[in-house]
Amino acid sequence: MSSCPACLVGLLLICLSIDYINARPNFVIMLMDDMGWGDLGVYGNPEKETPNLDAMAAEGMLLPNFYSANPLCSPSRASLLSGRLPIRNGFYSNNAHARNAYTPQDIAGGIPDAEILFPELLQSNGYRSKIIGKWHLGQQPQYHPLKHGFDEWFGAPNCHFGPYDDKKTPNIPVYRDADMVGRYYEDFMITSDGESNLTQIYIQEALTFIQKEAASNQPFLLYWAVDATHGPVYASPAFMGTSNRGRYGDAVRELDYGAGAILKQLQTLGIDNNTLVIFSSDNGAATYAKTGGGSNGPFLCGKETTFEGGMREPTIAWWPGKIGAGQVSHQLGSLMDLYTTILELAGVQRPTDRIIDGISLTNTLFNNQETDREIFYYRGDELMAVRQGLYKAHLWTWTNSIEEFNEGTDFCPGQEIANVTTHDQVNNTMQPLLFHLGTDPGEKYLIHPMSHEYRTIIPRIQAAIMKHKQTLVRGTPQLNYCDSSLMNWAPTGCEKLGRCLTAPPSNRQLCVWPH
Amino acid sequence: MSSCPACLVGLLLICLSIDYINARPNFVIMLMDDMGWGDLGVYGNPEKETPNLDAMAAEGMLLPNFYSANPLCSPSRASLLSGRLPIRNGFYSNNAHARNAYTPQDIAGGIPDAEILFPELLQSNGYRSKIIGKWHLGQQPQYHPLKHGFDEWFGAPNCHFGPYDDKKTPNIPVYRDADMVGRYYEDFMITSDGESNLTQIYIQEALTFIQKEAASNQPFLLYWAVDATHGPVYASPAFMGTSNRGRYGDAVRELDYGAGAILKQLQTLGIDNNTLVIFSSDNGAATYAKTGGGSNGPFLCGKETTFEGGMREPTIAWWPGKIGAGQVSHQLGSLMDLYTTILELAGVQRPTDRIIDGISLTNTLFNNQETDREIFYYRGDELMAVRQGLYKAHLWTWTNSIEEFNEGTDFCPGQEIANVTTHDQVNNTMQPLLFHLGTDPGEKYLIHPMSHEYRTIIPRIQAAIMKHKQTLVRGTPQLNYCDSSLMNWAPTGCEKLGRCLTAPPSNRQLCVWPH
Repeated sequence: MSSCPACLVGLLLICLSIDYINARPNFVIMLMDDMGWGDLGVYGNPEKETPNLDAMAAEGMLLPNFYSANPLCSPSRASLLSGRLPIRNGFYSNNAHARNAYTPQDIAGGIPDAEILFPELLQSNGYRSKIIGKWHLGQQPQYHPLKHGFDEWFGAPNCHFGPYDDKKTPNIPVYRDADMVGRYYEDFMITSDGESNLTQIYIQEALTFIQKEAASNQPFLLYWAVDATHGPVYASPAFMGTSNRGRYGDAVRELDYGAGAILKQLQTLGIDNNTLVIFSSDNGAATYAKTGGGSNGPFLCGKETTFEGGMREPTIAWWPGKIGAGQVSHQLGSLMDLYTTILELAGVQRPTDRIIDGISLTNTLFNNQETDREIFYYRGDELMAVRQGLYKAHLWTWTNSIEEFNEGTDFCPGQEIANVTTHDQVNNTMQPLLFHLGTDPGEKYLIHPMSHEYRTIIPRIQAAIMKHKQTLVRGTPQLNYCDSSLMNWAPTGCEKLGRCLTAPPSNRQLCVWPH
Repeated sequence: MSSCPACLVGLLLICLSIDYINARPNFVIMLMDDMGWGDLGVYGNPEKETPNLDAMAAEGMLLPNFYSANPLCSPSRASLLSGRLPIRNGFYSNNAHARNAYTPQDIAGGIPDAEILFPELLQSNGYRSKIIGKWHLGQQPQYHPLKHGFDEWFGAPNCHFGPYDDKKTPNIPVYRDADMVGRYYEDFMITSDGESNLTQIYIQEALTFIQKEAASNQPFLLYWAVDATHGPVYASPAFMGTSNRGRYGDAVRELDYGAGAILKQLQTLGIDNNTLVIFSSDNGAATYAKTGGGSNGPFLCGKETTFEGGMREPTIAWWPGKIGAGQVSHQLGSLMDLYTTILELAGVQRPTDRIIDGISLTNTLFNNQETDREIFYYRGDELMAVRQGLYKAHLWTWTNSIEEFNEGTDFCPGQEIANVTTHDQVNNTMQPLLFHLGTDPGEKYLIHPMSHEYRTIIPRIQAAIMKHKQTLVRGTPQLNYCDSSLMNWAPTGCEKLGRCLTAPPSNRQLCVWPH
């Protein structure tokens, strides 16, 4: 057989193939929760409290024009993993017009099986995968990470809201893999003044996973979905009071420390040259949290809105030896692009039976070249705005209702732009509001509809909108129904702990999404 | 004589003294005009168009809590050079309450001879000095730089406003040293679309001066007071259209290029290790210029106001080998501190017959240690606000009059904070408005007067105010009178050029300061 040329070629191909498999890069996605564009030193926070992330940017690429797919957490995360806009993957509600919806623990829906998440494709192509932290794509077992492409999970299906009483509402469970291992405020404490060891646990989970996987022959995906900057904001004792900006800054400092520890781990293990690390956030800072939330820098409004403060994310890409140090790219990017980019780098074919909204950023990351594309800003079932190049057109404007605003919920504190930060849902589709984000990043100065600039740009944007809408197949909305019987009463594994609670009878009803 | 021990000691002292003189550092102050805190990449501008200044920060120290002494150019510059607040050095007006005043070309006043500028003290102690660019401390000959401590000047006494007709108003002259060499819009063009070679000339002037002085035995001071980012904003052809944010961004890019060229020149000549370079700006970005002006990042309002946007400056200190690379200091700093710091570093005694408001920053720059001090925010003749630590108390609030605002002059576009961004002059001295600039850099969230925090902090700030006022000796206001006969009709040197114009009769009157 050794004299058979065809066999030799075959062996060579197998060897090359094994080499290729071994050479496939690892991926680490550090996804922050409600962290704003302006929260990092390198993105201009006056407190300059992120030395590790600033160093990450100095060693890698800064992407100041990078967006989430949605101004709210669950849809943003569903889009990150599916590569598709919430309007396609079902992470929206049409209970009412243009409402932000997410996955509270009584939500009936979750990530549909029909969505092909990139971790599923990586997994079926030899990758090992772990999610640490917040899942937020559905609390029912069929929606859990281990059913959707992850080998391991340490974290929770919902936000760390609470404490609850386990009677009217159960405390949110924390899982290790498929089984609950405890609950927030019971086994995993967050005190009323925001002290918690959770970030330290999440850091250790990450370091351990990386060390374990580095010793194996398989490449890995780590999705580090930490949530200390989401209200109730928390930090561990070593970081409490270390920031000039309260508990939120303490949380940022601890997460910065954690990001640094993860990068250091990759370097120590000698796999930094084979690992793409992306740092970003799921949506803008929660400006309604006032001094308790983060900063969106010079941008308008924040989380829940489709202004820049709601969806522009503090993003850094890092891959020593592959991504040149100290670069800045003004590529319009999206968290959905990680889908396409990661699959390309892993040598895995992306689905061809559906539209994937994410584009590949390899040419941006490795050659610092830009690709034209639009950013579509959805709120629930409505396309609110579109960015093309430096221009952004608002088809609809809305902050929140005047009633909610008058009761103290302000999505744009201290900011007021006439006809822009509206408290009514205003339909501008016939004459979109146009801004130039280069000269006017704060969306303050409307370009006059009679101007040459407006008449040149708007038709181009409208053509892009038409193209987008022509190919749009709306997914079945997953976030319409709520049912308190579906809460985390008896998570898998509760029986082993003797911690199962009794669910109330079903009371399926339309969820209420006020804004 | 050689056997005389006393003579040997004397010779040694002379040698040491010469060594000491030769070892005295050079100083370069790069003072921008109307550039905002948020205009540099390293301070969070989304366009990231200042690679040279970002590198300067990476090699030196960033000072995110650094202030001008005033929200307007002339008083800010008078304070920089005198080390004293405008209320002391006379660069204010009491024609009306709390008005911003400067030196238009019909101003009667200027920098008083009684003020001892630090360039005068450096000059009399063996330094060579040059100012390049805008002087702004009086257009009459007795106020010129060569009368106040500078050996050389290339630039203009006033802003580059115009073009004028040389009949009702003369175009602003440009001087080389004591003589006029031409006028803006005549010999030094700024076209209506903002094209001008002036920044290139200012860069070349700097490089030539540094090269000349590096070859001498004397240390030098270079005050690079460039003005391309002051309206009318300009850039040279090579930089026109290179920014995403219009002519203003083009100007920033060109100034960044210039700053880089100056640092490079110091390195090439091998004197970077003996030169302190400070980059800053004279006041906040002119937010009223709308998309034509700069960015104050996350801060409130801009130039003309005593909110953070009006007086917090994008500051970098650079001295390879003396200031460690990549540092950040949260020291509360002031442009007036350059006075005290520079004199200390030059080994020159500062005046002891008057209060100097600037403190020495040597312990900050070289040891990264902080010194407690207050920042006093004056507007004209009124103390508007005080910062102490992370707290800022507003004694008075004012933006501009509602009449001016309604006519379109907006100092806080898109920003509105109830009871804070007032259009009346509101006296809060009995119950100051208190903000925590750590958790609330945008001055949006008033600390409640009944809170423990308020009751703890306000007495401390009031004690500091009392101490300040007790020692305050107000200078004679220099900016009260205007007279069109004092305009630049016949600048020194005009006769050599045959370019003298005839002054009209004197019409001395109170200047009008609308805000």
